[in-house]
Amino acid sequence: MIKTVEWTNEGVSMLDQRLLPTEEKYLILRSYEEVADAIKKMVVRGAPAIGVSAAFGLALGAKQSVGTSIADLEFDFDYMCEVMGSTRPTAVNLFWAIERMRQALRRAKEKTQDVEEAKQILVDEALKIYQEDLESNRAMGRFGGELLQDGATVLTHCNAGALATAGDYGTALGVIRGARDLGKRIAVIADETRPFLQGSRLTAWELSKDQIPVTLITDNMAGHFMKQGKVDAVVVGADRIAANGDTANKIGTYMVAVLAKRHNIPFYVAAPVSTLDLSILTGEEIPIEERDAKEVTHVRDQQLAPEGIEVHNPAFDVTPNELITAIITDRGVAREPYTQSLKKLVESAAVA
Amino acid sequence: MIKTVEWTNEGVSMLDQRLLPTEEKYLILRSYEEVADAIKKMVVRGAPAIGVSAAFGLALGAKQSVGTSIADLEFDFDYMCEVMGSTRPTAVNLFWAIERMRQALRRAKEKTQDVEEAKQILVDEALKIYQEDLESNRAMGRFGGELLQDGATVLTHCNAGALATAGDYGTALGVIRGARDLGKRIAVIADETRPFLQGSRLTAWELSKDQIPVTLITDNMAGHFMKQGKVDAVVVGADRIAANGDTANKIGTYMVAVLAKRHNIPFYVAAPVSTLDLSILTGEEIPIEERDAKEVTHVRDQQLAPEGIEVHNPAFDVTPNELITAIITDRGVAREPYTQSLKKLVESAAVA
Repeated sequence: MIKTVEWTNEGVSMLDQRLLPTEEKYLILRSYEEVADAIKKMVVRGAPAIGVSAAFGLALGAKQSVGTSIADLEFDFDYMCEVMGSTRPTAVNLFWAIERMRQALRRAKEKTQDVEEAKQILVDEALKIYQEDLESNRAMGRFGGELLQDGATVLTHCNAGALATAGDYGTALGVIRGARDLGKRIAVIADETRPFLQGSRLTAWELSKDQIPVTLITDNMAGHFMKQGKVDAVVVGADRIAANGDTANKIGTYMVAVLAKRHNIPFYVAAPVSTLDLSILTGEEIPIEERDAKEVTHVRDQQLAPEGIEVHNPAFDVTPNELITAIITDRGVAREPYTQSLKKLVESAAVA
Repeated sequence: MIKTVEWTNEGVSMLDQRLLPTEEKYLILRSYEEVADAIKKMVVRGAPAIGVSAAFGLALGAKQSVGTSIADLEFDFDYMCEVMGSTRPTAVNLFWAIERMRQALRRAKEKTQDVEEAKQILVDEALKIYQEDLESNRAMGRFGGELLQDGATVLTHCNAGALATAGDYGTALGVIRGARDLGKRIAVIADETRPFLQGSRLTAWELSKDQIPVTLITDNMAGHFMKQGKVDAVVVGADRIAANGDTANKIGTYMVAVLAKRHNIPFYVAAPVSTLDLSILTGEEIPIEERDAKEVTHVRDQQLAPEGIEVHNPAFDVTPNELITAIITDRGVAREPYTQSLKKLVESAAVA
């Protein structure tokens, strides 16, 4: 089992995804600042993984708080939440996890005056978020696995796998693993996903490790293979889904969705309910992170573009709901009209 | 003026495009084999530049032939044509240039028994192909420049610039330069164009050099910027255009065309008449070159994907005629139905 992020006695253990696929190295992060920094620098990425990491970071920070009263802890904790919340703007799971931890502290306050007990409640909550993430991926795998045909070739963009979650199954790749668990033979085409190359570095790595057949292509080849009839379905993850189903995901997802539509290929989004943000009506309201130009102009230390060239580097784009065949969540599969179907899922009981 | 390829007393001078944008180095190729090898290894690339280079290579080979009779020269020349024709399969300008040189030798045979005179006729023909290429780009610039609006932002894919032709203007970038010459302010968005990065390495370099504003993006960002209304037109080059207008061009062009259609953005192809292949009815018949997996898995010596991963690397794709607003040639602008309009252009007199 791939362990993307874990709680250990020494701190938060995190697989350094920047070094994959050539090096498999685990960092031990020993403070909430180190965890925030790791999120910012994309040691870990993927909306659910960011959520779990943030929760662990806050639990670690709380544990290390020197405050002797709950009020002291709360003061420290509020500040940590701010630091953690400013790491990356698009993935809603970050804010969702921070809010879950805040609520846990509120519950702790009602329950106890003992600061050590309150800290333990926060650690337990983070471990619960972690455990739920693993379970929710398995649930998505079961729901989504049903939708794929035996023998299908599935195209995916970016990495929405074990490495984008706490570990194990992943979201979009969880759906592929779910289909495999149902005895279906699935082959994957992985877009390399410029500029950060999550497809070539991460998706190709974790599927190879899992012995799921995978073929790597550059992002601009997706249309060519769809035109040749070589893609039966698309499954991608999500960083934030608006109430109407509009989905922010890794830059390039919109392009894949437009191409899938043209070729009548089903386009599925796989994400836990924690990725839904019903507070915003459409994708227009989702903030899109702009990242460093150097991600585009360089690969490691190799300069690929002229010195000083102007660059755009939005990390995400928004796919409108009309291009999405279904949204596979841990509580079931939502279809149009999403405003109703997503609301219903959020209001339903969580998977046991 | 950028000089992509040139005839010199010492041999064929060629800018080594593999080293751009960090190094501007000119190679002197001293035999037809060295020219063929340079085409194969993409020291030079771009359909018209390949055509001109092949003509120079054959002229050089003929000049160096030790045969003392025209029959000897012809024997050598046939072999050289085979070697040259096997370098790259998709760009039709290669075969067009070889055929022009063959015809020149046939004319020489009718005219003279002097092998040195025949060799000079071949050198003159290659220089004529070179000169015509420069002129045809200027003509495309005039025709195409009319189609762009003042203040337009034009997206381009790959490099169809000076570096894809004998030098100077280029095809798609020739249209942009043509618009500039008409006093229009044009800004360019350049797709980086994986895997060979002709956009970031070449287009960004030559436009910067020419002080035309250029912004670099990864290929998968094109849809996002079109959706935001930031692209007014698309202009790309071509490697081969079938009788019905279907166009083979750098991998990813099809994706850009599909996105342009969705956003009602005009999609122009710019190519000289020598890129037309009326012998094939549709794009289905165009052979697509599959290149080395290492272009996808590595950037220079940097490994980006797991060892031994399966890779697809088609160098081109085919854009169907229905997605093409107009084809800008050196003899005028063709529109639907292309089967008629392209035939008419080929039958028309060449530009003076």
